[in-house]
Amino acid sequence: MGMPLELNTMIVTKGKEKRLANSNDFTLTKGGYRIYPLNIPISVQKTKNGELIGTGIVKKLTWEDDKTILTYELTSLHSTN
Amino acid sequence: MGMPLELNTMIVTKGKEKRLANSNDFTLTKGGYRIYPLNIPISVQKTKNGELIGTGIVKKLTWEDDKTILTYELTSLHSTN
Amino acid sequence: MGMPLELNTMIVTKGKEKRLANSNDFTLTKGGYRIYPLNIPISVQKTKNGELIGTGIVKKLTWEDDKTILTYELTSLHSTN
Amino acid sequence: MGMPLELNTMIVTKGKEKRLANSNDFTLTKGGYRIYPLNIPISVQKTKNGELIGTGIVKKLTWEDDKTILTYELTSLHSTN
Repeated sequence: MGMPLELNTMIVTKGKEKRLANSNDFTLTKGGYRIYPLNIPISVQKTKNGELIGTGIVKKLTWEDDKTILTYELTSLHSTN
Repeated sequence: MGMPLELNTMIVTKGKEKRLANSNDFTLTKGGYRIYPLNIPISVQKTKNGELIGTGIVKKLTWEDDKTILTYELTSLHSTN
Repeated sequence: MGMPLELNTMIVTKGKEKRLANSNDFTLTKGGYRIYPLNIPISVQKTKNGELIGTGIVKKLTWEDDKTILTYELTSLHSTN
Repeated sequence: MGMPLELNTMIVTKGKEKRLANSNDFTLTKGGYRIYPLNIPISVQKTKNGELIGTGIVKKLTWEDDKTILTYELTSLHSTN
């Protein structure tokens, strides 16, 4: 009866993010309805327990058709040198 | 990785509510982590699509051990005469 | 530090809804980041305590620039005759 | 009309946490109704932008009387030597 939601504290891309032209903004579509904090720096990772890509800020979130579409800015890259 | 939540807009008791002595307050335990609005009148029903019991106001909500424990006040009873 | 949200259990239009051509779908922009349940029938009212317009189902919700943009279908009209 | 919430991704103690006897569990009371993810490791800090205390896991969350009461386990301490 209720609406299922998932609360997320990091962005896990699984390599499916799409970079917007000439920017550090990316879009990413995830299954189900998910809450991500907007305007707060959070970790961006390729997999749940895997590589840290960097830090991002979610700027836009859309729920539709049992999907969540994010736009986030990659504000810093993790360096491993 | 995220935390599953369910957003609820009414209270469905399934007859499991417990009345607190000498009051119109009831406690109810539901499975999983659920969000109910506090301090806003919402419907109280026995089953999802079934009998309307009345209107209630959630005064306390606790999440623990994959359960949600509510305390709500039954503020008005549905009358069917 | 956190992200302010508002949990809403009904749609209050204040007359600002825009009807999409040839449909019962409307868009409505509200201030701040708000959660509305999707795919669950909720009340649509002109003002908080005022006229009931009918029942609607939110089909899409977007958070951006400290605003929430809804698309909802007006599934039934309240009749007062 | 709606219910104000704040979505939090870390615990900021401001030194107000209370340690439960013989354990690494702490209780903390915060103003307003707040969502913290349960069962997910999050940062524990003394102030928003200040000292990292360590990592904690929220095990219990209660909303009542416009306050949020957390119980969290401090699972690792930040070391600065």
